[in-house]
Amino acid sequence: MYFASDNAGPVHPQVMDFLVKSNTGHARPYGDDALMDQVRDRLRDIFEAPDAAIYLVALGTAANSLALATLAQPFQTIFCSDVAHIHMDECNAPEFYTGGAKLTLVPGGDKMTADALRTSIQAEGNRGVHGPERGPVSITQVTERGGVYSINELSALTDVAKSYGLPVHMDGARFANALVTQNASPADMTWRLGVDALTFGGTKNGLMGVEAVIFFDPKHAWEFELRRKRAAHLFSKHRYLSAQMLAYLTDDLWLNSARQANANCTRLAKGLQAAGGQFMHHPDANMIYVKFPRHVHTRLQQAGAIYEADHTLAGDPDEMLPCRLVCDWSISSGLIDEFLSFF
Amino acid sequence: MYFASDNAGPVHPQVMDFLVKSNTGHARPYGDDALMDQVRDRLRDIFEAPDAAIYLVALGTAANSLALATLAQPFQTIFCSDVAHIHMDECNAPEFYTGGAKLTLVPGGDKMTADALRTSIQAEGNRGVHGPERGPVSITQVTERGGVYSINELSALTDVAKSYGLPVHMDGARFANALVTQNASPADMTWRLGVDALTFGGTKNGLMGVEAVIFFDPKHAWEFELRRKRAAHLFSKHRYLSAQMLAYLTDDLWLNSARQANANCTRLAKGLQAAGGQFMHHPDANMIYVKFPRHVHTRLQQAGAIYEADHTLAGDPDEMLPCRLVCDWSISSGLIDEFLSFF
Amino acid sequence: MYFASDNAGPVHPQVMDFLVKSNTGHARPYGDDALMDQVRDRLRDIFEAPDAAIYLVALGTAANSLALATLAQPFQTIFCSDVAHIHMDECNAPEFYTGGAKLTLVPGGDKMTADALRTSIQAEGNRGVHGPERGPVSITQVTERGGVYSINELSALTDVAKSYGLPVHMDGARFANALVTQNASPADMTWRLGVDALTFGGTKNGLMGVEAVIFFDPKHAWEFELRRKRAAHLFSKHRYLSAQMLAYLTDDLWLNSARQANANCTRLAKGLQAAGGQFMHHPDANMIYVKFPRHVHTRLQQAGAIYEADHTLAGDPDEMLPCRLVCDWSISSGLIDEFLSFF
Amino acid sequence: MYFASDNAGPVHPQVMDFLVKSNTGHARPYGDDALMDQVRDRLRDIFEAPDAAIYLVALGTAANSLALATLAQPFQTIFCSDVAHIHMDECNAPEFYTGGAKLTLVPGGDKMTADALRTSIQAEGNRGVHGPERGPVSITQVTERGGVYSINELSALTDVAKSYGLPVHMDGARFANALVTQNASPADMTWRLGVDALTFGGTKNGLMGVEAVIFFDPKHAWEFELRRKRAAHLFSKHRYLSAQMLAYLTDDLWLNSARQANANCTRLAKGLQAAGGQFMHHPDANMIYVKFPRHVHTRLQQAGAIYEADHTLAGDPDEMLPCRLVCDWSISSGLIDEFLSFF
Repeated sequence: MYFASDNAGPVHPQVMDFLVKSNTGHARPYGDDALMDQVRDRLRDIFEAPDAAIYLVALGTAANSLALATLAQPFQTIFCSDVAHIHMDECNAPEFYTGGAKLTLVPGGDKMTADALRTSIQAEGNRGVHGPERGPVSITQVTERGGVYSINELSALTDVAKSYGLPVHMDGARFANALVTQNASPADMTWRLGVDALTFGGTKNGLMGVEAVIFFDPKHAWEFELRRKRAAHLFSKHRYLSAQMLAYLTDDLWLNSARQANANCTRLAKGLQAAGGQFMHHPDANMIYVKFPRHVHTRLQQAGAIYEADHTLAGDPDEMLPCRLVCDWSISSGLIDEFLSFF
Repeated sequence: MYFASDNAGPVHPQVMDFLVKSNTGHARPYGDDALMDQVRDRLRDIFEAPDAAIYLVALGTAANSLALATLAQPFQTIFCSDVAHIHMDECNAPEFYTGGAKLTLVPGGDKMTADALRTSIQAEGNRGVHGPERGPVSITQVTERGGVYSINELSALTDVAKSYGLPVHMDGARFANALVTQNASPADMTWRLGVDALTFGGTKNGLMGVEAVIFFDPKHAWEFELRRKRAAHLFSKHRYLSAQMLAYLTDDLWLNSARQANANCTRLAKGLQAAGGQFMHHPDANMIYVKFPRHVHTRLQQAGAIYEADHTLAGDPDEMLPCRLVCDWSISSGLIDEFLSFF
Repeated sequence: MYFASDNAGPVHPQVMDFLVKSNTGHARPYGDDALMDQVRDRLRDIFEAPDAAIYLVALGTAANSLALATLAQPFQTIFCSDVAHIHMDECNAPEFYTGGAKLTLVPGGDKMTADALRTSIQAEGNRGVHGPERGPVSITQVTERGGVYSINELSALTDVAKSYGLPVHMDGARFANALVTQNASPADMTWRLGVDALTFGGTKNGLMGVEAVIFFDPKHAWEFELRRKRAAHLFSKHRYLSAQMLAYLTDDLWLNSARQANANCTRLAKGLQAAGGQFMHHPDANMIYVKFPRHVHTRLQQAGAIYEADHTLAGDPDEMLPCRLVCDWSISSGLIDEFLSFF
Repeated sequence: MYFASDNAGPVHPQVMDFLVKSNTGHARPYGDDALMDQVRDRLRDIFEAPDAAIYLVALGTAANSLALATLAQPFQTIFCSDVAHIHMDECNAPEFYTGGAKLTLVPGGDKMTADALRTSIQAEGNRGVHGPERGPVSITQVTERGGVYSINELSALTDVAKSYGLPVHMDGARFANALVTQNASPADMTWRLGVDALTFGGTKNGLMGVEAVIFFDPKHAWEFELRRKRAAHLFSKHRYLSAQMLAYLTDDLWLNSARQANANCTRLAKGLQAAGGQFMHHPDANMIYVKFPRHVHTRLQQAGAIYEADHTLAGDPDEMLPCRLVCDWSISSGLIDEFLSFF
């Protein structure tokens, strides 16, 4: 019963099969492989963006940091949610990659509202050279707490950014999960709203470790390539990144896996609700923040269930304690039901 | 006929099989997977270094830069060959990772001699705060031109470094190839000589993309872990790095693959010698720098042979022109003979 | 009527006289001048710290950033007030100098409380390699809003820092002003409480541009010297920094100037109180944050008074509007009375 | 008898007088002082560059590093002489300020030739993303060994730079000394040749510590201002930088002081030549690299003469030993003759 994260499950068999199939002969290194041509074509089709510059790296933090370093100057500040992955979970990687840019945390605890973003932006950039310049806005979709911005919510955020002339980055580590929730087109959820650079996640949705970085305006391409190499994120045997991403984009595997993960989450959430769980955020995609009684935690953990929870098992057995539960595509309905059986 | 590099061949089937076999269920992310425990045990055994701190990353440039950033301060200079990979082929990654340390190029054109190294070190660090402090010495084994330092040569270099109190890094992207050439033990070629940190390469010897960083003194461990995470080189689905490395270390695959690559190279070198090729460096491992007539280049390239050569095909057909030929484990003797048939 | 800042007044005549007097013959450059020996002796006496390592730079931001870069690692976070100069007014200098460390803003709006600091520290450093490590605590004395921490308040803060094993930096751009308010000894306000590094300001208190950085533990000395040089803050004609600082420390000029500035501020504050000004913070030293009616602002600004105020003069004449008023040693009582006459 | 450097003499009395004279009342901080307006006007006149963006900092290393950081990207390499100050004497400051750019050392030992520069540039930028991109060319005028490039020599260098589309920086720490040697106009020695950014030195020519950075194309202005502030090189009490520079530019003080320094050097050089000194470089400005017998060194040093020499006094008394002798404007002809009397 592993619900700790969507970064711990197996690689999807279709992906692994394609990796094995691609493992013949020599291939040009460093992104010049033929499979990468296909990846580029597919993603440009999917995003209706024939000029987009598209790159692969192995980690989400690399994708985010390299995209932000390309969009930001070291004397700027990046606007993001106060629980954004780039702030909380990347050990200063954005600061490192940008050469020392700051992050301005938009208060709210997860989703940014357009008003809160505007207030934060307005409060910066007023001090001449004394404070940092305003830099990119980074939006996380799916959010860190499992929410999904609606197209209208996104549009309000990008409107604010654009009114200040700021570039927009989207951290889409769980982009596919958000997309199937919104039932939107990839273009509608990104560049049509003004998103300049997208981290298009694959790792949390069945790949071994591949994320695409997509610049909808190719003017950033060459700088990004140099920054990727300088940061040691350009793979020599790049075809194995390409192969994963190509398998992901084939036969809608990326969408189907996200649908499966979201469906698993819905099944789990329904069960939790029925059992009296208190939701801390609405689970819009494949992640649940929920409280339930300590005695249930105790039983679950004794049974070997693994999930994020930051509290001790000693104390009032009826106290409602928070935890995070994440579903990926690979979790069976039986496992979910087994988990729920402990309530 | 692909002799351009050892970074373009297929993943060894035993590695791919083990990847497939490891692809079940959930595994703890970020290096806490059970396979990594085995990797650590195996490498400590192989290196007779029970306390060594051992980490995996996917790229050689990452391994080198993170190791150097851990050993060096930003106000220091790193001593290396004037054709070292860290200088020529990493797009300023060492400068980026160290926060702006300098590289001091020891002249010689490939192998460093102890005398040249001493002269370079002596010339730095004499200017108080005005010049950089002396920092780590980085030795490449196999060298960039296909040479292998003898144990005595290495010992002379590390003696110089130690006489100045400087730490030593070894860039062992082709460590296995060097080891089988020297028929030395891993410990004898590293920490017994005073090597502090080793980039233990796998990618060029049959892996998809994994290098180990080994600190023989574990005092560097925690700083390295933070630097790896900050640089976005800590894989969430780390088990797939572990699995590759474990397969590599199983049944001497790493040594056997290196022996095969070196044997392929020897076969090719003998043929080239017989055909009048002029060797620019002695091919000690799996790489050949050689000159042969333009008319042979012409025929080879018309036949689709791929290898590094920096000259035009127009000109005197008998002019001797340089090129680089690299063999990996996967090249068949038939392919080598086919290549030689064009002479 | 210039109350905008204490960085705009003249150099104290005693300082200028000593600069002129020191301007004969040649002097060893780069801090090896004889005057610097005297500065070092004087400051060690004043701080009762015979082993302290002492350096001069020209700017407060340089002093802060270099001190913090010496105490912090790039994968750490620095704890400071949410209005600290290092956060608000240095255009990412601490991030630049540390190589990308983060600042964690302790909420409160000016003074940090021990509880708020503890909560902020506790919330960091719990995420293994995913979040930054805990780094130095930076305390501003005088605070940005004109407050002065009592010895007890400081002690509570340094106790929290020490309980986590964190080094402490004090931004003492207005150290002398705080000292005369507290009537404490320099040692009691710094190292006896656990302060590791002090920015000892001179520029805002009558110098042309000199701040001392004092490390009470000299183990940081050589690293600081290299960082200072690398950051281009080591003056060749260093004697002119030494001369300023020596004049500052002679005949208690530093304390007398601070007393004069604080007395000027008290005179102004009393007048403002009598005139119905609403104090936003208690003016403990030489800075006042106060609100008074728009019609007074209008008259003052028409009369050419210069001070920081972020609002328009159009609007309800009776509306109470905020501003900042700063006194340095050079402001005459007549000027203060003239300012007050507009109320 | 101080001939060690031109960074150790007194501030010119006219400069000190003007500093004293400027020390009244309040002045707007951070470069908004009225004196800076005059500095800007004067320098624009002198350089016939009405649009130039002009800034003051206190140190030559700051001027060089900030100018280069504005012109270079972190994934580029800067071309300079193999003995350039930015390489030898700034403790990695250019690497720090640029965020990790590399320096490519053009061989030659002091002056760069156009051919050597072209060869160095040509050898870089051929490796796609693997090596650094080509970045700015930095030319030192007066050179580190006391040479002065002719306008033709400079033109040949800037032509090479421009043929690759590279920006040009001139390190003019001794710009005035070069100018009076060449008897050229400031515009002819800079922007008319294609120099983009100039470090216009004052410190080595009689100021306390001021250098101007001049961008002939103002497009770099705002970025420079942010970088200067971020690096802690924007003075609050900026008027004292302005005052120094204004005095320097008044009544040709800058040119007269340089003429005096060069004349002192000529007098010294003639004496050395007559005494059998062996010149290692032709002394074109105010610096001499010369060898003379050990027994003369012995006598000079026993008499308290101070100059740079890197050898022991024990050994063959007739051995010719190298040293560096630098003259500033303040050295009397009597002192020079006294020095020569030891031969």
